[in-house]
Amino acid sequence: MKNIMLTLEYDGTNYSGWQIQDNANSIQAEVENAIYKLTKKEVTLIGAGRTDAKVHALGQVANFFIDTTIPGRTFKYALNEYLPEDIKAVYSNEVPEDFHARFSAIKKRYRYKIYLSDVERPLLRNYAYQIDRNLNINNMKEASKYLIGTHNFTSFEGRRSFTKSKIRTIRSIDIKKRDEFIDIVVEGDSFLRNMVRIITGTLVEIGIGKRKPAEIKLILQAEDRRLSGHTAPPQGLYLEKVFYKIFM
Amino acid sequence: MKNIMLTLEYDGTNYSGWQIQDNANSIQAEVENAIYKLTKKEVTLIGAGRTDAKVHALGQVANFFIDTTIPGRTFKYALNEYLPEDIKAVYSNEVPEDFHARFSAIKKRYRYKIYLSDVERPLLRNYAYQIDRNLNINNMKEASKYLIGTHNFTSFEGRRSFTKSKIRTIRSIDIKKRDEFIDIVVEGDSFLRNMVRIITGTLVEIGIGKRKPAEIKLILQAEDRRLSGHTAPPQGLYLEKVFYKIFM
Repeated sequence: MKNIMLTLEYDGTNYSGWQIQDNANSIQAEVENAIYKLTKKEVTLIGAGRTDAKVHALGQVANFFIDTTIPGRTFKYALNEYLPEDIKAVYSNEVPEDFHARFSAIKKRYRYKIYLSDVERPLLRNYAYQIDRNLNINNMKEASKYLIGTHNFTSFEGRRSFTKSKIRTIRSIDIKKRDEFIDIVVEGDSFLRNMVRIITGTLVEIGIGKRKPAEIKLILQAEDRRLSGHTAPPQGLYLEKVFYKIFM
Repeated sequence: MKNIMLTLEYDGTNYSGWQIQDNANSIQAEVENAIYKLTKKEVTLIGAGRTDAKVHALGQVANFFIDTTIPGRTFKYALNEYLPEDIKAVYSNEVPEDFHARFSAIKKRYRYKIYLSDVERPLLRNYAYQIDRNLNINNMKEASKYLIGTHNFTSFEGRRSFTKSKIRTIRSIDIKKRDEFIDIVVEGDSFLRNMVRIITGTLVEIGIGKRKPAEIKLILQAEDRRLSGHTAPPQGLYLEKVFYKIFM
Protein backbone atom coordinates (compact mmCIF):
# COMPACT_ATOMS: atom_id res chain seq x y z
CA MET A 1 0.00 0.00 0.00
CA LYS A 2 1.23 3.43 -0.94
CA ASN A 3 0.28 6.63 0.85
CA ILE A 4 -0.20 9.14 -1.97
CA MET A 5 -0.27 12.86 -1.30
CA LEU A 6 -1.91 15.26 -3.76
CA THR A 7 -1.76 19.03 -3.97
CA LEU A 8 -4.98 20.20 -5.62
CA GLU A 9 -5.96 23.43 -7.31
CA TYR A 10 -9.66 24.00 -7.86
CA ASP A 11 -12.15 26.58 -8.95
CA GLY A 12 -14.84 26.18 -6.29
CA THR A 13 -17.50 28.13 -8.21
CA ASN A 14 -19.57 25.12 -9.23
CA TYR A 15 -19.12 22.99 -6.10
CA SER A 16 -20.83 22.67 -2.74
CA GLY A 17 -17.43 22.60 -1.02
CA TRP A 18 -14.72 20.10 -0.22
CA GLN A 19 -16.63 17.58 1.86
CA ILE A 20 -18.94 14.89 0.51
CA GLN A 21 -22.58 15.78 1.21
CA ASP A 22 -25.84 14.21 0.16
CA ASN A 23 -27.35 15.64 -3.02
CA ALA A 24 -24.47 17.99 -3.69
CA ASN A 25 -21.35 17.85 -5.81
CA SER A 26 -18.23 18.07 -3.70
CA ILE A 27 -14.56 18.36 -4.60
CA GLN A 28 -13.79 15.28 -2.46
CA ALA A 29 -16.31 13.14 -4.38
CA GLU A 30 -14.97 14.32 -7.75
CA VAL A 31 -11.40 13.39 -6.82
CA GLU A 32 -12.43 10.03 -5.30
CA ASN A 33 -14.41 9.27 -8.49
CA ALA A 34 -11.43 10.17 -10.69
CA ILE A 35 -9.17 7.89 -8.62
CA TYR A 36 -11.75 5.13 -9.06
CA LYS A 37 -11.92 5.63 -12.83
CA LEU A 38 -8.13 5.55 -13.04
CA THR A 39 -7.43 2.61 -10.70
CA LYS A 40 -10.79 0.83 -10.24
CA LYS A 41 -10.18 1.14 -6.50
CA GLU A 42 -12.35 2.87 -3.93
CA VAL A 43 -10.39 5.14 -1.63
CA THR A 44 -11.23 7.64 1.08
CA LEU A 45 -9.55 10.97 0.56
CA ILE A 46 -8.33 12.88 3.62
CA GLY A 47 -8.27 16.64 3.02
CA ALA A 48 -6.16 19.17 4.94
CA GLY A 49 -9.04 21.62 5.30
CA ARG A 50 -12.73 21.76 4.45
CA THR A 51 -13.41 24.57 2.04
CA ASP A 52 -16.98 25.93 1.76
CA ALA A 53 -19.11 26.15 -1.36
CA LYS A 54 -17.59 28.52 -3.97
CA VAL A 55 -14.29 28.77 -2.05
CA HIS A 56 -11.19 28.09 -4.17
CA ALA A 57 -7.92 26.30 -3.53
CA LEU A 58 -4.48 26.91 -4.96
CA GLY A 59 -2.90 24.34 -2.68
CA GLN A 60 -5.37 22.05 -0.95
CA VAL A 61 -3.54 18.92 0.23
CA ALA A 62 -5.07 15.45 0.44
CA ASN A 63 -3.81 11.90 0.92
CA PHE A 64 -5.13 8.37 0.47
CA PHE A 65 -3.89 4.78 0.66
CA ILE A 66 -3.84 2.65 -2.46
CA ASP A 67 -2.24 -0.46 -3.90
CA THR A 68 -0.97 0.75 -7.26
CA THR A 69 2.03 0.53 -9.57
CA ILE A 70 1.66 4.17 -10.65
CA PRO A 71 4.64 6.11 -9.22
CA GLY A 72 3.74 8.87 -6.78
CA ARG A 73 5.43 11.61 -8.78
CA THR A 74 3.53 10.87 -11.99
CA PHE A 75 0.21 10.04 -10.35
CA LYS A 76 -0.95 13.62 -11.01
CA TYR A 77 -0.69 13.27 -14.79
CA ALA A 78 -2.69 10.04 -14.83
CA LEU A 79 -5.29 11.40 -12.42
CA ASN A 80 -5.74 14.69 -14.30
CA GLU A 81 -6.97 12.75 -17.32
CA TYR A 82 -10.05 11.80 -15.25
CA LEU A 83 -10.58 15.00 -13.29
CA PRO A 84 -12.92 17.77 -14.51
CA GLU A 85 -11.28 20.92 -15.87
CA ASP A 86 -12.02 22.90 -12.69
CA ILE A 87 -10.16 20.46 -10.39
CA LYS A 88 -6.57 19.35 -11.08
CA ALA A 89 -3.66 17.85 -9.17
CA VAL A 90 -0.69 20.19 -9.47
CA TYR A 91 1.64 17.93 -7.44
CA SER A 92 1.67 14.34 -6.26
CA ASN A 93 4.12 12.14 -4.40
CA GLU A 94 4.38 9.03 -2.26
CA VAL A 95 4.71 9.98 1.40
CA PRO A 96 5.48 8.03 4.62
CA GLU A 97 2.56 5.96 5.92
CA ASP A 98 2.13 8.17 8.99
CA PHE A 99 1.53 11.26 6.85
CA HIS A 100 -2.03 12.57 7.36
CA ALA A 101 -3.12 15.58 5.29
CA ARG A 102 -5.01 17.11 8.22
CA PHE A 103 -3.22 15.99 11.38
CA SER A 104 0.30 16.38 9.98
CA ALA A 105 -0.37 19.96 8.86
CA ILE A 106 1.40 22.51 11.04
CA LYS A 107 0.17 25.70 9.37
CA LYS A 108 -2.30 26.88 6.70
CA ARG A 109 -2.30 30.00 4.58
CA TYR A 110 -5.54 31.51 3.29
CA ARG A 111 -5.79 34.45 0.92
CA TYR A 112 -8.86 36.65 0.72
CA LYS A 113 -9.17 38.87 -2.37
CA ILE A 114 -11.10 42.15 -2.38
CA TYR A 115 -11.53 44.66 -5.19
CA LEU A 116 -12.69 48.23 -4.93
CA SER A 117 -15.16 49.32 -7.59
CA ASP A 118 -18.48 51.13 -7.85
CA VAL A 119 -19.64 48.54 -10.42
CA GLU A 120 -19.38 44.76 -10.50
CA ARG A 121 -16.45 43.46 -12.52
CA PRO A 122 -17.43 40.43 -14.67
CA LEU A 123 -13.93 38.92 -14.73
CA LEU A 124 -13.75 39.03 -10.92
CA ARG A 125 -17.33 38.05 -10.07
CA ASN A 126 -16.43 34.49 -9.00
CA TYR A 127 -12.94 35.27 -7.73
CA ALA A 128 -13.06 38.30 -5.42
CA TYR A 129 -15.31 40.36 -3.12
CA GLN A 130 -16.50 43.71 -4.47
CA ILE A 131 -16.46 46.70 -2.11
CA ASP A 132 -17.96 49.88 -3.55
CA ARG A 133 -16.07 52.39 -1.42
CA ASN A 134 -12.59 53.07 -0.21
CA LEU A 135 -11.10 51.14 2.68
CA ASN A 136 -8.75 52.62 5.27
CA ILE A 137 -5.92 50.10 5.05
CA ASN A 138 -4.00 51.50 8.01
CA ASN A 139 -6.99 51.00 10.31
CA MET A 140 -7.45 47.46 8.99
CA LYS A 141 -3.78 46.69 9.64
CA GLU A 142 -4.01 48.12 13.16
CA ALA A 143 -7.12 46.01 13.85
CA SER A 144 -5.55 42.84 12.49
CA LYS A 145 -2.76 43.02 15.11
CA TYR A 146 -5.25 42.22 17.89
CA LEU A 147 -6.02 38.91 16.20
CA ILE A 148 -2.42 37.68 16.02
CA GLY A 149 -1.53 35.04 18.62
CA THR A 150 -3.48 32.43 20.55
CA HIS A 151 -7.06 33.41 21.41
CA ASN A 152 -10.53 32.04 21.89
CA PHE A 153 -12.07 32.76 18.47
CA THR A 154 -15.72 31.98 19.33
CA SER A 155 -16.71 35.45 18.07
CA PHE A 156 -15.24 34.57 14.66
CA GLU A 157 -16.82 31.16 14.21
CA GLY A 158 -19.73 30.50 11.85
CA ARG A 159 -22.92 28.65 12.74
CA ARG A 160 -23.37 24.89 12.53
CA SER A 161 -19.95 24.15 13.92
CA PHE A 162 -19.31 21.27 16.27
CA THR A 163 -15.72 22.03 17.22
CA LYS A 164 -15.15 21.75 20.95
CA SER A 165 -12.11 23.96 21.48
CA LYS A 166 -12.40 27.46 20.10
CA ILE A 167 -8.74 28.23 20.88
CA ARG A 168 -6.75 28.90 17.72
CA THR A 169 -3.41 30.51 16.92
CA ILE A 170 -3.03 33.07 14.13
CA ARG A 171 0.62 33.49 13.12
CA SER A 172 0.28 36.45 10.78
CA ILE A 173 -2.17 38.66 8.91
CA ASP A 174 -0.75 40.53 5.96
CA ILE A 175 -2.88 43.19 4.25
CA LYS A 176 -1.63 44.44 0.90
CA LYS A 177 -3.17 47.01 -1.44
CA ARG A 178 -2.16 47.24 -5.09
CA ASP A 179 -4.22 49.53 -7.31
CA GLU A 180 -7.89 48.55 -6.74
CA PHE A 181 -7.03 45.17 -5.21
CA ILE A 182 -6.64 44.30 -1.53
CA ASP A 183 -5.34 40.89 -0.45
CA ILE A 184 -5.68 39.71 3.14
CA VAL A 185 -3.30 36.81 3.79
CA VAL A 186 -3.87 34.90 7.03
CA GLU A 187 -1.58 32.18 8.36
CA GLY A 188 -2.54 30.05 11.32
CA ASP A 189 -2.18 26.60 12.86
CA SER A 190 -5.79 25.75 12.09
CA PHE A 191 -9.07 27.59 11.65
CA LEU A 192 -12.67 27.46 12.86
CA ARG A 193 -15.54 27.29 10.41
CA ASN A 194 -15.89 30.55 8.37
CA MET A 195 -13.14 32.13 10.52
CA VAL A 196 -11.22 33.82 7.70
CA ARG A 197 -14.43 35.10 6.11
CA ILE A 198 -15.71 36.57 9.40
CA ILE A 199 -12.30 38.13 10.10
CA THR A 200 -12.40 39.65 6.60
CA GLY A 201 -15.97 40.92 7.01
CA THR A 202 -15.04 42.53 10.33
CA LEU A 203 -11.86 44.11 8.89
CA VAL A 204 -13.90 45.49 5.96
CA GLU A 205 -16.31 47.14 8.42
CA ILE A 206 -13.28 48.69 10.14
CA GLY A 207 -11.92 49.75 6.74
CA ILE A 208 -15.11 51.62 5.80
CA GLY A 209 -15.16 53.35 9.21
CA LYS A 210 -18.21 51.58 10.67
CA ARG A 211 -16.05 50.23 13.53
CA LYS A 212 -12.83 51.30 15.26
CA PRO A 213 -9.71 49.07 15.18
CA ALA A 214 -9.61 48.60 18.97
CA GLU A 215 -13.10 47.05 18.90
CA ILE A 216 -11.48 43.79 17.81
CA LYS A 217 -10.09 43.33 21.32
CA LEU A 218 -13.57 43.59 22.86
CA ILE A 219 -15.11 41.33 20.21
CA LEU A 220 -12.54 38.62 20.99
CA GLN A 221 -13.12 38.93 24.75
CA ALA A 222 -16.91 38.75 24.43
CA GLU A 223 -16.79 35.28 22.79
CA ASP A 224 -20.03 36.12 20.99
CA ARG A 225 -20.55 35.84 17.22
CA ARG A 226 -23.14 38.61 17.27
CA LEU A 227 -20.45 41.21 18.01
CA SER A 228 -18.20 40.58 15.02
CA GLY A 229 -18.85 41.67 11.43
CA HIS A 230 -20.54 40.02 8.45
CA THR A 231 -19.25 36.84 6.84
CA ALA A 232 -17.43 37.93 3.68
CA PRO A 233 -18.70 36.02 0.61
CA PRO A 234 -17.04 32.70 -0.32
CA GLN A 235 -15.78 33.56 -3.82
CA GLY A 236 -12.98 35.81 -2.49
CA LEU A 237 -11.39 33.04 -0.40
CA TYR A 238 -8.49 30.80 -1.47
CA LEU A 239 -6.83 27.99 0.50
CA GLU A 240 -3.36 28.91 -0.73
CA LYS A 241 -0.93 26.60 1.02
CA VAL A 242 -0.75 23.91 3.69
CA PHE A 243 2.56 23.57 5.51
CA TYR A 244 4.08 20.31 6.79
CA LYS A 245 7.21 19.73 8.81
CA ILE A 246 8.64 17.15 6.40
CA PHE A 247 8.30 19.45 3.37
CA MET A 248 9.57 22.68 4.94
CA MET B 1 -30.97 62.19 -29.20
CA LYS B 2 -27.99 61.43 -27.02
CA ASN B 3 -24.88 59.61 -28.18
CA ILE B 4 -24.02 57.34 -25.24
CA MET B 5 -20.61 55.75 -24.94
CA LEU B 6 -20.09 52.65 -22.82
CA THR B 7 -16.90 50.99 -21.62
CA LEU B 8 -17.66 47.30 -21.15
CA GLU B 9 -15.88 44.56 -19.24
CA TYR B 10 -16.88 41.00 -20.07
CA ASP B 11 -15.96 37.41 -19.45
CA GLY B 12 -16.17 35.98 -22.95
CA THR B 13 -16.17 32.33 -21.82
CA ASN B 14 -19.84 31.69 -22.50
CA TYR B 15 -20.26 33.83 -25.61
CA SER B 16 -19.77 33.37 -29.34
CA GLY B 17 -18.03 36.74 -29.52
CA TRP B 18 -18.92 40.41 -29.79
CA GLN B 19 -20.88 40.44 -33.01
CA ILE B 20 -24.50 39.35 -33.41
CA GLN B 21 -24.71 36.03 -35.23
CA ASP B 22 -27.58 33.69 -36.00
CA ASN B 23 -28.13 30.93 -33.44
CA ALA B 24 -25.39 32.16 -31.11
CA ASN B 25 -25.30 34.35 -28.05
CA SER B 26 -23.21 37.45 -28.61
CA ILE B 27 -22.08 40.22 -26.30
CA GLN B 28 -23.59 42.82 -28.65
CA ALA B 29 -27.03 41.16 -28.50
CA GLU B 30 -26.89 40.91 -24.70
CA VAL B 31 -26.12 44.62 -24.35
CA GLU B 32 -28.74 45.66 -26.92
CA ASN B 33 -31.30 43.50 -25.08
CA ALA B 34 -30.40 45.08 -21.75
CA ILE B 35 -30.75 48.57 -23.24
CA TYR B 36 -34.16 47.53 -24.57
CA LYS B 37 -35.29 46.20 -21.19
CA LEU B 38 -34.16 49.43 -19.52
CA THR B 39 -35.50 51.96 -22.03
CA LYS B 40 -37.97 50.01 -24.22
CA LYS B 41 -36.02 51.34 -27.19
CA GLU B 42 -34.28 49.36 -29.89
CA VAL B 43 -30.76 50.57 -30.59
CA THR B 44 -27.84 49.38 -32.69
CA LEU B 45 -24.64 49.17 -30.72
CA ILE B 46 -21.38 50.11 -32.46
CA GLY B 47 -18.39 48.30 -30.97
CA ALA B 48 -14.76 49.42 -31.20
CA GLY B 49 -13.52 45.93 -32.04
CA ARG B 50 -14.98 42.52 -32.71
CA THR B 51 -13.77 40.04 -30.14
CA ASP B 52 -13.90 36.31 -30.97
CA ALA B 53 -15.69 33.59 -29.01
CA LYS B 54 -14.19 33.16 -25.50
CA VAL B 55 -12.09 36.34 -25.81
CA HIS B 56 -12.46 38.76 -22.89
CA ALA B 57 -12.61 42.52 -22.61
CA LEU B 58 -11.48 44.83 -19.85
CA GLY B 59 -12.25 47.94 -21.86
CA GLN B 60 -14.37 47.29 -24.96
CA VAL B 61 -15.95 50.57 -26.05
CA ALA B 62 -19.34 50.93 -27.71
CA ASN B 63 -21.75 53.73 -28.54
CA PHE B 64 -25.39 54.10 -29.55
CA PHE B 65 -27.96 56.86 -30.12
CA ILE B 66 -30.99 57.07 -27.88
CA ASP B 67 -33.65 59.50 -26.75
CA THR B 68 -33.52 59.18 -22.98
CA THR B 69 -33.61 61.26 -19.80
CA ILE B 70 -31.05 59.01 -18.09
CA PRO B 71 -27.83 61.03 -17.68
CA GLY B 72 -24.80 59.62 -19.51
CA ARG B 73 -22.68 59.30 -16.40
CA THR B 74 -25.23 57.21 -14.49
CA PHE B 75 -26.42 55.16 -17.47
CA LYS B 76 -24.03 52.36 -16.46
CA TYR B 77 -25.73 51.81 -13.09
CA ALA B 78 -29.18 51.57 -14.67
CA LEU B 79 -27.95 49.32 -17.49
CA ASN B 80 -26.03 46.97 -15.18
CA GLU B 81 -29.31 46.05 -13.49
CA TYR B 82 -30.34 44.38 -16.76
CA LEU B 83 -27.01 42.94 -17.90
CA PRO B 84 -25.93 39.38 -17.05
CA GLU B 85 -23.22 39.00 -14.41
CA ASP B 86 -20.53 38.26 -17.01
CA ILE B 87 -21.06 41.54 -18.91
CA LYS B 88 -21.08 44.95 -17.18
CA ALA B 89 -20.60 48.59 -18.08
CA VAL B 90 -17.71 49.99 -16.04
CA TYR B 91 -18.04 53.51 -17.48
CA SER B 92 -20.63 55.49 -19.42
CA ASN B 93 -20.94 59.05 -20.64
CA GLU B 94 -22.67 61.23 -23.19
CA VAL B 95 -20.29 62.01 -26.07
CA PRO B 96 -20.42 64.37 -29.10
CA GLU B 97 -22.67 63.16 -31.92
CA ASP B 98 -19.72 62.54 -34.25
CA PHE B 99 -18.13 60.08 -31.82
CA HIS B 100 -18.03 56.58 -33.36
CA ALA B 101 -16.65 53.75 -31.21
CA ARG B 102 -14.82 52.18 -34.17
CA PHE B 103 -13.93 55.02 -36.53
CA SER B 104 -12.95 57.48 -33.79
CA ALA B 105 -10.57 54.99 -32.16
CA ILE B 106 -6.92 55.88 -32.74
CA LYS B 107 -5.29 52.95 -30.94
CA LYS B 108 -6.18 49.66 -29.26
CA ARG B 109 -4.35 47.68 -26.62
CA TYR B 110 -4.68 43.90 -26.39
CA ARG B 111 -3.18 41.75 -23.64
CA TYR B 112 -2.43 38.06 -24.13
CA LYS B 113 -1.88 36.01 -20.95
CA ILE B 114 0.28 32.88 -20.91
CA TYR B 115 1.16 30.65 -17.94
CA LEU B 116 3.91 28.10 -17.75
CA SER B 117 2.95 24.82 -16.10
CA ASP B 118 3.26 21.09 -16.73
CA VAL B 119 -0.34 20.64 -15.56
CA GLU B 120 -3.52 22.55 -16.35
CA ARG B 121 -4.42 25.16 -13.74
CA PRO B 122 -8.18 25.16 -13.00
CA LEU B 123 -8.31 28.80 -11.94
CA LEU B 124 -6.65 29.88 -15.19
CA ARG B 125 -8.37 27.49 -17.61
CA ASN B 126 -10.68 30.13 -19.09
CA TYR B 127 -8.32 33.09 -18.64
CA ALA B 128 -4.87 32.19 -19.97
CA TYR B 129 -2.97 29.90 -22.36
CA GLN B 130 -1.04 27.02 -20.79
CA ILE B 131 2.46 26.29 -22.12
CA ASP B 132 4.09 23.21 -20.63
CA ARG B 133 7.72 24.20 -21.12
CA ASN B 134 9.97 27.18 -20.64
CA LEU B 135 9.96 30.06 -23.10
CA ASN B 136 13.04 32.05 -24.08
CA ILE B 137 11.78 35.56 -23.41
CA ASN B 138 14.79 37.30 -24.92
CA ASN B 139 14.26 35.56 -28.25
CA MET B 140 10.55 36.43 -28.16
CA LYS B 141 11.41 40.08 -27.48
CA GLU B 142 13.92 40.13 -30.33
CA ALA B 143 11.35 38.61 -32.70
CA SER B 144 8.64 41.06 -31.67
CA LYS B 145 10.77 44.02 -32.84
CA TYR B 146 10.34 42.95 -36.49
CA LEU B 147 6.58 43.39 -36.13
CA ILE B 148 6.68 46.98 -34.86
CA GLY B 149 5.77 49.58 -37.46
CA THR B 150 3.64 49.60 -40.60
CA HIS B 151 3.59 46.31 -42.51
CA ASN B 152 1.43 44.10 -44.68
CA PHE B 153 0.17 41.60 -42.07
CA THR B 154 -1.38 39.04 -44.45
CA SER B 155 0.74 36.32 -42.86
CA PHE B 156 -0.86 37.11 -39.49
CA GLU B 157 -4.49 37.20 -40.57
CA GLY B 158 -6.97 34.42 -39.81
CA ARG B 159 -9.31 32.79 -42.30
CA ARG B 160 -12.74 34.05 -43.19
CA SER B 161 -11.64 37.66 -43.29
CA PHE B 162 -12.97 40.13 -45.84
CA THR B 163 -10.72 43.06 -45.09
CA LYS B 164 -9.29 44.64 -48.23
CA SER B 165 -6.18 46.34 -46.94
CA LYS B 166 -3.80 44.16 -44.97
CA ILE B 167 -1.60 47.10 -44.01
CA ARG B 168 -1.60 47.73 -40.28
CA THR B 169 0.60 49.63 -37.83
CA ILE B 170 1.80 48.09 -34.58
CA ARG B 171 3.00 50.74 -32.14
CA SER B 172 4.49 48.51 -29.46
CA ILE B 173 4.80 44.94 -28.23
CA ASP B 174 5.71 44.55 -24.58
CA ILE B 175 6.57 41.08 -23.25
CA LYS B 176 6.73 40.74 -19.47
CA LYS B 177 7.48 37.67 -17.38
CA ARG B 178 6.57 37.50 -13.70
CA ASP B 179 6.93 34.14 -11.97
CA GLU B 180 5.10 31.60 -14.17
CA PHE B 181 3.11 34.26 -16.04
CA ILE B 182 3.96 35.92 -19.35
CA ASP B 183 1.94 38.86 -20.64
CA ILE B 184 2.23 40.01 -24.25
CA VAL B 185 0.81 43.52 -24.61
CA VAL B 186 0.27 44.73 -28.17
CA GLU B 187 -0.74 48.27 -29.13
CA GLY B 188 -1.71 49.18 -32.67
CA ASP B 189 -3.93 51.43 -34.75
CA SER B 190 -6.17 48.56 -35.71
CA PHE B 191 -5.90 44.79 -36.15
CA LEU B 192 -6.75 42.09 -38.67
CA ARG B 193 -8.84 39.09 -37.67
CA ASN B 194 -6.98 36.80 -35.20
CA MET B 195 -3.87 38.96 -35.62
CA VAL B 196 -2.88 39.13 -31.95
CA ARG B 197 -3.51 35.39 -31.50
CA ILE B 198 -1.38 34.46 -34.54
CA ILE B 199 1.39 36.84 -33.42
CA THR B 200 1.26 35.18 -29.99
CA GLY B 201 1.30 31.65 -31.44
CA THR B 202 4.30 32.54 -33.59
CA LEU B 203 6.15 34.18 -30.67
CA VAL B 204 5.48 31.07 -28.53
CA GLU B 205 7.06 28.89 -31.24
CA ILE B 206 10.08 31.19 -31.17
CA GLY B 207 10.11 31.01 -27.36
CA ILE B 208 10.25 27.20 -27.33
CA GLY B 209 13.04 27.24 -29.93
CA LYS B 210 11.08 25.82 -32.87
CA ARG B 211 11.81 28.99 -34.87
CA LYS B 212 14.50 31.69 -34.87
CA PRO B 213 13.61 35.35 -34.12
CA ALA B 214 14.74 36.59 -37.55
CA GLU B 215 12.18 34.32 -39.25
CA ILE B 216 9.52 36.91 -38.48
CA LYS B 217 10.99 39.20 -41.13
CA LEU B 218 10.65 36.50 -43.82
CA ILE B 219 7.15 35.55 -42.64
CA LEU B 220 6.01 39.17 -43.00
CA GLN B 221 7.58 39.48 -46.46
CA ALA B 222 6.00 36.24 -47.72
CA GLU B 223 2.45 37.52 -47.10
CA ASP B 224 1.35 33.90 -46.58
CA ARG B 225 -0.58 32.65 -43.53
CA ARG B 226 0.94 29.17 -43.90
CA LEU B 227 4.36 30.47 -42.85
CA SER B 228 3.41 31.94 -39.48
CA GLY B 229 2.69 29.98 -36.28
CA HIS B 230 -0.45 28.54 -34.74
CA THR B 231 -3.37 30.67 -33.61
CA ALA B 232 -3.08 30.93 -29.82
CA PRO B 233 -6.35 29.94 -28.09
CA PRO B 234 -8.97 32.63 -27.45
CA GLN B 235 -9.21 32.43 -23.66
CA GLY B 236 -5.81 34.15 -23.13
CA LEU B 237 -6.80 37.28 -25.05
CA TYR B 238 -8.16 40.52 -23.53
CA LEU B 239 -9.21 43.71 -25.32
CA GLU B 240 -7.74 45.93 -22.63
CA LYS B 241 -8.18 49.51 -23.79
CA VAL B 242 -9.36 51.57 -26.75
CA PHE B 243 -7.82 55.01 -27.14
CA TYR B 244 -9.58 58.12 -28.47
CA LYS B 245 -8.23 61.57 -29.15
CA ILE B 246 -10.91 63.33 -27.12
CA PHE B 247 -10.23 61.25 -24.01
CA MET B 248 -6.43 61.30 -24.13
